[in-house]
Amino acid sequence: MIIVLKGGATEEDVRRIEERIKADGLSAHVSKGVERTIIGVVGDERKLDPETFEGLDCVDKVMRVLSPYKLVSRDFKKEDTVIEVMGKKIGGGSIALFAGPCSVEGREMMVEIGKRVAASGATFIRGGAYKPRTSPYAFQGMGEDGLKCLADAREATGLPVATELMDPRDIDVVAKYADLIQIGARNMQNFRLLTEVGKLDKPIILKRGISATILEWLMSAEYIASEGNTRIILCERGIRTYEQATRNTFDVSAIPVLKALTHLPVIADPSHAAGKASLVEPLAAAAIAAGADGLMIEVHNQPEKALSDGPQSLRPDTFDAVVSRLKRVAEAVDRRLGTA
Amino acid sequence: MIIVLKGGATEEDVRRIEERIKADGLSAHVSKGVERTIIGVVGDERKLDPETFEGLDCVDKVMRVLSPYKLVSRDFKKEDTVIEVMGKKIGGGSIALFAGPCSVEGREMMVEIGKRVAASGATFIRGGAYKPRTSPYAFQGMGEDGLKCLADAREATGLPVATELMDPRDIDVVAKYADLIQIGARNMQNFRLLTEVGKLDKPIILKRGISATILEWLMSAEYIASEGNTRIILCERGIRTYEQATRNTFDVSAIPVLKALTHLPVIADPSHAAGKASLVEPLAAAAIAAGADGLMIEVHNQPEKALSDGPQSLRPDTFDAVVSRLKRVAEAVDRRLGTA
Amino acid sequence: MIIVLKGGATEEDVRRIEERIKADGLSAHVSKGVERTIIGVVGDERKLDPETFEGLDCVDKVMRVLSPYKLVSRDFKKEDTVIEVMGKKIGGGSIALFAGPCSVEGREMMVEIGKRVAASGATFIRGGAYKPRTSPYAFQGMGEDGLKCLADAREATGLPVATELMDPRDIDVVAKYADLIQIGARNMQNFRLLTEVGKLDKPIILKRGISATILEWLMSAEYIASEGNTRIILCERGIRTYEQATRNTFDVSAIPVLKALTHLPVIADPSHAAGKASLVEPLAAAAIAAGADGLMIEVHNQPEKALSDGPQSLRPDTFDAVVSRLKRVAEAVDRRLGTA
Amino acid sequence: MIIVLKGGATEEDVRRIEERIKADGLSAHVSKGVERTIIGVVGDERKLDPETFEGLDCVDKVMRVLSPYKLVSRDFKKEDTVIEVMGKKIGGGSIALFAGPCSVEGREMMVEIGKRVAASGATFIRGGAYKPRTSPYAFQGMGEDGLKCLADAREATGLPVATELMDPRDIDVVAKYADLIQIGARNMQNFRLLTEVGKLDKPIILKRGISATILEWLMSAEYIASEGNTRIILCERGIRTYEQATRNTFDVSAIPVLKALTHLPVIADPSHAAGKASLVEPLAAAAIAAGADGLMIEVHNQPEKALSDGPQSLRPDTFDAVVSRLKRVAEAVDRRLGTA
Repeated sequence: MIIVLKGGATEEDVRRIEERIKADGLSAHVSKGVERTIIGVVGDERKLDPETFEGLDCVDKVMRVLSPYKLVSRDFKKEDTVIEVMGKKIGGGSIALFAGPCSVEGREMMVEIGKRVAASGATFIRGGAYKPRTSPYAFQGMGEDGLKCLADAREATGLPVATELMDPRDIDVVAKYADLIQIGARNMQNFRLLTEVGKLDKPIILKRGISATILEWLMSAEYIASEGNTRIILCERGIRTYEQATRNTFDVSAIPVLKALTHLPVIADPSHAAGKASLVEPLAAAAIAAGADGLMIEVHNQPEKALSDGPQSLRPDTFDAVVSRLKRVAEAVDRRLGTA
Repeated sequence: MIIVLKGGATEEDVRRIEERIKADGLSAHVSKGVERTIIGVVGDERKLDPETFEGLDCVDKVMRVLSPYKLVSRDFKKEDTVIEVMGKKIGGGSIALFAGPCSVEGREMMVEIGKRVAASGATFIRGGAYKPRTSPYAFQGMGEDGLKCLADAREATGLPVATELMDPRDIDVVAKYADLIQIGARNMQNFRLLTEVGKLDKPIILKRGISATILEWLMSAEYIASEGNTRIILCERGIRTYEQATRNTFDVSAIPVLKALTHLPVIADPSHAAGKASLVEPLAAAAIAAGADGLMIEVHNQPEKALSDGPQSLRPDTFDAVVSRLKRVAEAVDRRLGTA
Repeated sequence: MIIVLKGGATEEDVRRIEERIKADGLSAHVSKGVERTIIGVVGDERKLDPETFEGLDCVDKVMRVLSPYKLVSRDFKKEDTVIEVMGKKIGGGSIALFAGPCSVEGREMMVEIGKRVAASGATFIRGGAYKPRTSPYAFQGMGEDGLKCLADAREATGLPVATELMDPRDIDVVAKYADLIQIGARNMQNFRLLTEVGKLDKPIILKRGISATILEWLMSAEYIASEGNTRIILCERGIRTYEQATRNTFDVSAIPVLKALTHLPVIADPSHAAGKASLVEPLAAAAIAAGADGLMIEVHNQPEKALSDGPQSLRPDTFDAVVSRLKRVAEAVDRRLGTA
Repeated sequence: MIIVLKGGATEEDVRRIEERIKADGLSAHVSKGVERTIIGVVGDERKLDPETFEGLDCVDKVMRVLSPYKLVSRDFKKEDTVIEVMGKKIGGGSIALFAGPCSVEGREMMVEIGKRVAASGATFIRGGAYKPRTSPYAFQGMGEDGLKCLADAREATGLPVATELMDPRDIDVVAKYADLIQIGARNMQNFRLLTEVGKLDKPIILKRGISATILEWLMSAEYIASEGNTRIILCERGIRTYEQATRNTFDVSAIPVLKALTHLPVIADPSHAAGKASLVEPLAAAAIAAGADGLMIEVHNQPEKALSDGPQSLRPDTFDAVVSRLKRVAEAVDRRLGTA
């Protein structure tokens, strides 16, 4: 960590900062220039929070030298992490394909959609049984009944199922049915929930928070990893910006940026990013071209009647056609999509 | 709700949208113009989610006519909500003054800081026992021991205490000690937590999410209110923008905007917004001038040794001087600050 | 345009809005609901500015029904605009490839880089002679001497050249040498400059403003078109968001969104979006996969000595390898890249 | 400037960066730590652009030590700059009050509004003769005729007049009539225009760009100052964020942040920030409380008929009442507002 003091900083200011650094078992290297004094921290700076210094009136700016995350960093582990569930892989040469409805709405629809997406090449089935909704008056999900429908879809297709966990109190029931557990965008910094899923022996899909920086996202992955669970999949789903033409701004750059910083697999959710069915294909293609290790696509057999997020869902036949075209893009970057 | 179709929308498109509207027990009014067809929803549109229509390829745009929140709206209740706790008020003519450290670090410091801020005119004491930290390696709070220290500070000063709740599993222990319960920015859309505190008989301080819109913030308040607890205090604490000169961008406009939309009291947290002690006074003054019903200010007796957020904390003597000056600003807008 | 009034709006409020609408030669259709009054504008609403009504205290919200741009809209012209310069096309089945240095730094380098990129398949040469720099102390470009170097590169390669115009006073000299004229991000709302280039008989590359909405961008294109010049190329180059991991956030969604709204060709500049050479290829691939009609890529023969934007520039041999791989992505979406 | 290399950086990488630094006449200090190599630049780093290094694949991050602006910095000149025009001051103890319509619409209205705002305590009259409008079909301003109306208002009131300059070609005519020249938000990075007004002997009001950082804003001021004109007034007018409840997000923190970084006066334009008349007073009060050196408020005698920005304008009688109340806020922070 490097701390640049303001022009008028005094000897006393320097001394106090040195003391603060030593209090954490680190040492300080002070360099007095003509215009500015710079203090370098020697030792494992991960113990220090830059904000401890940034707010001081004598400090101009603070820069970390080392990243504050460790276990999830590419420096810590050079090779790509490949996660395998029931014989299906995420990471490595193939591109995982998660598909299914936003919300589980019943057994029949789950099984039907599951079979359809499996036939099109999906490798994982998704569906929400617990739904975070901005309105208290909206459909909140089927709960455990929904989880059972997912299990039925798994049985019918042989594909692993992924579903969202919102509340630490639901962890046992969700873990009972789900093969992968998703932490949604709104819970990316629900640190208690992260700590709990870090203790599980299940892969975790960690969605990017609505306005999370890549650094914060990796720190949330570190929370999970620090409890022992390193089977983490990062999922880009669009960020909040000033632009209103799309629901979120799909940050396609995050994919190659993350691939350089972390060994974890990175997948993309073009459905939530776009909020419109017509944008799913171009964004999915962009994600593949940019190096994504997987896609998560919403598919519904009756989008116009869906209880949540209907309009961004593809019909099974559209999904099938889209996947065919996306396979060609995957091949162009020497990857395979789904069961292709 | 008004739905504007695209130029090429067909009769079939119109029919499907009408059906979807009727399925929710509402009726549709179709108006065909020269260039566009517009569909108006007749009935209580709060049941409908604009996204149901926005994603359809035949739809150009959708606009709500009514706000999706009700209980917290100014339309529902004209008069300002005034919340009283142990004889101290939030809302109405006076400006509440919450003060205390970011984290509770021990009994002695809590009692000392409590006494100092009480002497300066604070009406409420704040301090965190459970801390949401971006790093798993950072201090996570004292837990129940911290809550006990808060109770000691209350006893020593006679002032009510406010503290953050992060996890529904902690609700009983937090409610046992705290007089007001804070929902932090990262949990503003932790809907399960909102539902739980909605069942409590304690005032809730709902901080604005890091990139929450005012609409989403009010919807989160509606979650709490819909469970029966309408003693909600909204707290502006800065939003995330591209600007890096301050930790967050303090959205002072949110104060008058909210005062028009809702009957709930609105307070401001200049300490977290700014991230620098030197900015606390000007932002606090701005908040008062813009109509805030309260301030939440971090005070620490040894900011340079604080376990979290030290540098944005004021020392007790600085706090005292700042409050004296802020009282003059409050008077200039015909309000009283703290116990002034 | 649809105007929704607030709950408490009076008859007098309605009458004034009606008058204001009529003053512009349009008529108003008032619809009084149980909770709200809604006023629809009948006639060519493009004459009206929503802000005229949005600021009124009695108005809750305003929604345009028609887009405020016309000439550049897909509604006005269904078929894609294909722009041809010296036999090279932008739009239609092929993907144009603009390549060259950020700044023109001399005759020799321009000719050499020109030849190299031409050999790799570039269809257009780019280079800046007038440079918008945030610091007054930085290199501001070679001016007319730089334009002459560009002309030399054109002669050496047979490829058309594109360069930026910053000041209406330079229009004659720039138009004398350049085949295409670029309006940079910082000038996207320099309306006087837009009006001037609208009078030229040269294609205009209109870069997206640093925080421009897609709507504002199209309005700036409309400025150019309204003067008679409809040979406009829109260039996505990243937008400003809170994320600091990349210089800008490349808004890949803008490509399919624009292709639906306008008949103009849309190209992408991954070099400026990313700010890092290593991100150019994945973002370029993403742009192609999402449907871009062209790419603009910075190439420099000595990036480490470049007078501006060196580090995001590719070396000619890297560029050659990148283009080979991108051609495969283009084929996967049934397009051809450059002179492929 | 401090350059942190990535973990895997080689000796060759270090050597190249050293060479690049020496090429600019500076020297490099290399410090090899256990995990990372850090290169410090010794000498006047203002010559270097951090982006020169940021884009290199071997570089992790770059931090400036010194600010890239000099003439406008508080380090360069400790005392506040006070600008005086026709006996009216901006900066120092008093708070300047600019008032008038968004657009000049005629002689009579300008003179009438001028007299009214003068009577209420305004110290400067504002009005636009050249208007930047997002639509080519909107009113573009009266041009020189509008400037003459402003001159008439000056004659009638004795107050100096301020107006916007959009095009370097208009500089002579605007300078002929105006006492202060405004550079609008959309032209904050129109570097040619900045250079031109830097040569004038008139105070310049430099509005913040719609998404300009405080650093970029100061760099634009440095452009003007570097040409010799240091009579520059910075005007905060709101920034673009994700929040849509206000037209822009008024960044009140920018006021105290700037007061620490620069000696230039800082004023605020609450009318453009808010976009609603009802928000003008609270935001103006907030700006005063936060330390602004002036306010710019739109006043129109018939807001509902205004040719631009009507609804955010105050009527003269409302303005008079607002100013009376704002004077009390100014007194509470030991300042005087307008001719108070």
